[in-house]
Amino acid sequence: MDHYLKALFAPKSVAIIGVSATSRRSGNVFYDRLLGYGFEGRVYAVGRNGGMVEDEPIYPSVKDLPEVPDLVFGAVGMQATPQAMIDAAAAGVRVGIVFTAGFAEMSADGAEIQRDMVARCNELGMRVVGPNCMGVFSTGCGMNLTDVEGLDAGQIGFVSQSGNIALTLFDNAKRHDLGFHSFVSFGNQADIPAIDYIEYMAQDDAVEVILLYLESLQENAGADFIARCRAVAARKPIVAIKGGVTNAGRRAAASHTSRLSASEDIYDAAFEQAGIVQVQDLDHVMAVAEALLRCPPMKGENIAIVGSGGGHSTVGTDCVERAGLTVPAFDQEMKDIFGEYLPPWAPMSNPVDMTGGFTEDLTLFQTLMRYPLSRPEFHGGLSYGLYGEGWRPGLVDDNGLTFETAAPTLAALQQETGKPIVFYTPFAKEPDKSFTAMRLSGVPCYGSLAEAAAGLAALRTRGAFLARVAGRHETEPDRAPSSSGAGSAFTLTEYESLRRITAAGMATVRQELVSSAEEAMAAADAIGYPVVLKAQLTNVAHKSDVNGVRLGLTTADEVAAAFEQMSTIPNAGAAVNCTVSQQIAAERELLLGIRKDETFGHTIVVGVGGILTEVAARVAVLVPPVDLGEFVATIERSPIASYLGDWRGKPAVDLEELHRQVTALHAMCRADQAIESVDINPLAVVGSSLQAVDAAVVLESAPELG
Amino acid sequence: MDHYLKALFAPKSVAIIGVSATSRRSGNVFYDRLLGYGFEGRVYAVGRNGGMVEDEPIYPSVKDLPEVPDLVFGAVGMQATPQAMIDAAAAGVRVGIVFTAGFAEMSADGAEIQRDMVARCNELGMRVVGPNCMGVFSTGCGMNLTDVEGLDAGQIGFVSQSGNIALTLFDNAKRHDLGFHSFVSFGNQADIPAIDYIEYMAQDDAVEVILLYLESLQENAGADFIARCRAVAARKPIVAIKGGVTNAGRRAAASHTSRLSASEDIYDAAFEQAGIVQVQDLDHVMAVAEALLRCPPMKGENIAIVGSGGGHSTVGTDCVERAGLTVPAFDQEMKDIFGEYLPPWAPMSNPVDMTGGFTEDLTLFQTLMRYPLSRPEFHGGLSYGLYGEGWRPGLVDDNGLTFETAAPTLAALQQETGKPIVFYTPFAKEPDKSFTAMRLSGVPCYGSLAEAAAGLAALRTRGAFLARVAGRHETEPDRAPSSSGAGSAFTLTEYESLRRITAAGMATVRQELVSSAEEAMAAADAIGYPVVLKAQLTNVAHKSDVNGVRLGLTTADEVAAAFEQMSTIPNAGAAVNCTVSQQIAAERELLLGIRKDETFGHTIVVGVGGILTEVAARVAVLVPPVDLGEFVATIERSPIASYLGDWRGKPAVDLEELHRQVTALHAMCRADQAIESVDINPLAVVGSSLQAVDAAVVLESAPELG
Repeated sequence: MDHYLKALFAPKSVAIIGVSATSRRSGNVFYDRLLGYGFEGRVYAVGRNGGMVEDEPIYPSVKDLPEVPDLVFGAVGMQATPQAMIDAAAAGVRVGIVFTAGFAEMSADGAEIQRDMVARCNELGMRVVGPNCMGVFSTGCGMNLTDVEGLDAGQIGFVSQSGNIALTLFDNAKRHDLGFHSFVSFGNQADIPAIDYIEYMAQDDAVEVILLYLESLQENAGADFIARCRAVAARKPIVAIKGGVTNAGRRAAASHTSRLSASEDIYDAAFEQAGIVQVQDLDHVMAVAEALLRCPPMKGENIAIVGSGGGHSTVGTDCVERAGLTVPAFDQEMKDIFGEYLPPWAPMSNPVDMTGGFTEDLTLFQTLMRYPLSRPEFHGGLSYGLYGEGWRPGLVDDNGLTFETAAPTLAALQQETGKPIVFYTPFAKEPDKSFTAMRLSGVPCYGSLAEAAAGLAALRTRGAFLARVAGRHETEPDRAPSSSGAGSAFTLTEYESLRRITAAGMATVRQELVSSAEEAMAAADAIGYPVVLKAQLTNVAHKSDVNGVRLGLTTADEVAAAFEQMSTIPNAGAAVNCTVSQQIAAERELLLGIRKDETFGHTIVVGVGGILTEVAARVAVLVPPVDLGEFVATIERSPIASYLGDWRGKPAVDLEELHRQVTALHAMCRADQAIESVDINPLAVVGSSLQAVDAAVVLESAPELG
Repeated sequence: MDHYLKALFAPKSVAIIGVSATSRRSGNVFYDRLLGYGFEGRVYAVGRNGGMVEDEPIYPSVKDLPEVPDLVFGAVGMQATPQAMIDAAAAGVRVGIVFTAGFAEMSADGAEIQRDMVARCNELGMRVVGPNCMGVFSTGCGMNLTDVEGLDAGQIGFVSQSGNIALTLFDNAKRHDLGFHSFVSFGNQADIPAIDYIEYMAQDDAVEVILLYLESLQENAGADFIARCRAVAARKPIVAIKGGVTNAGRRAAASHTSRLSASEDIYDAAFEQAGIVQVQDLDHVMAVAEALLRCPPMKGENIAIVGSGGGHSTVGTDCVERAGLTVPAFDQEMKDIFGEYLPPWAPMSNPVDMTGGFTEDLTLFQTLMRYPLSRPEFHGGLSYGLYGEGWRPGLVDDNGLTFETAAPTLAALQQETGKPIVFYTPFAKEPDKSFTAMRLSGVPCYGSLAEAAAGLAALRTRGAFLARVAGRHETEPDRAPSSSGAGSAFTLTEYESLRRITAAGMATVRQELVSSAEEAMAAADAIGYPVVLKAQLTNVAHKSDVNGVRLGLTTADEVAAAFEQMSTIPNAGAAVNCTVSQQIAAERELLLGIRKDETFGHTIVVGVGGILTEVAARVAVLVPPVDLGEFVATIERSPIASYLGDWRGKPAVDLEELHRQVTALHAMCRADQAIESVDINPLAVVGSSLQAVDAAVVLESAPELG
């Protein structure tokens, strides 16, 4: 059986209510536009006072028409609308559009009138679109029942809660050579839920991508929406932008749960579960629709960037990585291959900048991109170029190709590899037939690097969803840290590190270095229980990962037993050294770090410390010199401001003391340029004191003995 | 004394090296372009083989010229470049530009040649721009020494490390009716540091905004750059985009400090300290420059949005809030004022949608915006409209204004209030004289809501920096939570909350309700020490804030004393109830929450719990129903994946057990729609068990007694 919304999107007959023989009313405008646009079906005019329009009769009511039309369009005033729609329902019409505004969006009275109208229409078997909507458009059957004069035909089905946003996206679509097969604006969504339109478009073979602008679903419609969208998304991409994500709700919320999951977070989760590709930036919506329409979904996160133009390769890499994808470096084998095509000064890692070599051979983009995309570890490609001359009609390369004829070669590569390729040139903000040729052959051509990255990220989101639905386990991207850069750095033991920072003027917990169980017990007795025993290891980032830390030792026997156990740590050697230190109960734990940067010298990091360092990942970064005023101001506008302020009944961290210690630590590093980094973690806050509990000083290379 | 770079940006005489009498070399192109563009100074051609060009002599060397030129431009091959530049330096020239590429960017040999060339030039008193640069452009003196044919004159000074990015921004500038007073591309930055160009532009009165595209500073130049930029920024805005922020370094880093402060974070901090307005998206750079050029800085974060078009007001509010600004609701007094101008169905809170009322009075934008901007609590305005007809030449309103003549009225309001106003219409992606009129009068007119928000955010960044420099303390934005929405919600006591979730099937710690010190001691003895004593209070979110929690009580006497102390809590009443509960040592603490959403029903939040809940602010949001597979997949792609996985030597949290408990908790809520939210925090992880330690069940209203 046909979907009930076939009456809306592909009606055989339409009646416009609100046409006048004597004056030009809103109904006349829609009547004329529908006829003028070339609607394939039959059109009837309805108007209270009858008469003739364009040599055709105006019928006083829908029930007077020679047939029951599939669809009625109500363009009469708000007062007259309910009766007109109810009359149509009584006559047997199945779907009615209420263009008119002034219902639920205006007042409580309007909401009640709307509710009654819909209820009576539903009882009589008619479903209602709107009210307060911009109508429906079907390029498939030449039906225009909207405010716009025309719409380019294409493969997108568009479901929009707002007319104005639709106008903007219609305009943007032209910049991507995109068109629409069907469009509906649903306004107040008084009756038909958005998912019904989506499901209709899902079963219409002419629609290849479904676009949704949503402000809200109907009450309690969430779970139904997710389940049905998920079924649709398994077959066709759905792209959505959610309007109305204001933070006001988040700010006002009292509970943790409400503050950490405001309504926009719930929509984010719902869209993700529904397999919807969500776009946050209105400027990127059509870019994403273009990628999903033209390209295959992406099966991993690794992008190869091969194009022409240095600065754009740098910014393009930034955009792609910011969008959550990765641009892994090429291996030497790949670089050697590129070396056969490109001049020696061309960057040949990933990204590859072809520099000027392409003007003699416009197929070089495709030739070079083939190498990384033939490798399983690459999942998609970004190509780019300025084409100062390449795309202008005059230029013909050695193969006799213009850029217009060469552009589709990338599409052939995309088809061959099954991996998406997108293209960027800043000139694509304006129309050009070479860009159109590239797009229509299957490769999106963008005028913005951020759009190109958004397109690729959307293809990855889609690919990951399809894999999830199919129960496929995808290869994780290779995130193994490269060994380059680690170089010959040498990490001092904790004992040595703490000794150095104490000498520099920092406060540290009391500790003793011991090398036997007896020494350990004696030290513990002297310090006072409880104590902590820690193995002193070089080049181990996290001692706790190798059981090199024992906390809360309360007797000499426990200390001795713990010492014996430490001796069994692999690589600790027979002559293990440990420290015995005072165990203090920190109210807060900070991270204080120093890191040498080739441009800014030793820079400072203050953050959440202790076991949650990486999970919280909240830090302030400071570039010295910073005086106390600048230090305090930077901390106060940083993400750790609340953690360092009055907190859970404890007074704020003493920022003056923290600044003093930071300054002392920085002075130590400035005086010893061999220091690559210092990690103090935790820096324990107890009352107004700050004490380093653990530290790791990393030198650029192992110190010479002697 | 004049800045030494006056010889670069405003030379009286220029020599082009590399001009040929017999063939068309690169030097000829620059020579012709410089003459053709109308340079005010004297131009000399230099070429090894002499001869004539355009009826002027070609001099064999710079030393043969009739005068020492202020500037030389080297456009000869890489091999010949060093000697040509050294000859120019020996002749007494003060600044030379090396356009030629093939130096440090190509190879180690090239780097050495570059280093030697610069050193010899410097010894002879000449400074060098480039190599591998795109030259210099000064519309002020009509000097074009670049690859581009022309450049619109204007108030921007542009310092760019990349030529290609500059071309893109030149193109974008046209869309904002912006032009340039001076431009330099500095390529390899072998000699003159970027900050010198910035300082030159700072002292040039014709430059009002300085734009920087930066990939890297010279080694160890960071602190000097920050200090000198800060001095410039105190007088003129500097807008910068940083290229090359790849995450590769972050991924490879071993230490906490390095991972949490990769090079891009240090640049972020440095730019902030330097007072530079940083832009992340290349597409937004000229939008930000436009705002800083035309508008006053913003003294707070509160934006009034008054325009025409519903969907755009929704998405505009989203954009402004995502940019870190706020859109506070208007009070009733303000709404009443708007009611006098607008039809009753127009939304009159913030944002205000004027709907169609403006076509009769095109000054209405200004009239309405005046009301909020006259209030001290509003700091800037966003206006917007589609102007389907308003801006078209034909339309004239009742005041005899076209949109072109009405547009500048907003600029007058901006000047009067000293608060910035920006305008948005999707049609502004294309040029129109009404948009140009608005921009030139002082109000940026954007074709993108994201750009409009980026412009306002930049004005806020600039305002905050100027206040910091001046030592002013600015009013904090009003972030007091609105009471609306809190309604009559009722929080059950912890005891009652835990009792309910236990009944629902969740595991909870053992606890007893006690109402006297004697009962407390007895309960503690039964449970076993250490215990926790907690006051049972309704409608208190954080008991620890009112000293309603005592941890680690190890004897009956401590329990009794703690109980007596609880009785003194304000509002606890004489008959205080407490719980005594088992104190357990959690290996990890989770937050498990449920929140009722009007669309999605009861939704689930899993996050970092305990005292770091808000600081970490890491959660996964799930919309039921979620089966185990979907639950695990959602957790694994969420920000808490690592916190729930293998962690610090502890096995991963048992997700199957967590899913079972979540499902039980959700079933309880589904069965009782009066439950608005549940906060379980912490949910303690001990080995493979999960136990709720504290909970708060919030009902929509107080339960009826009886």
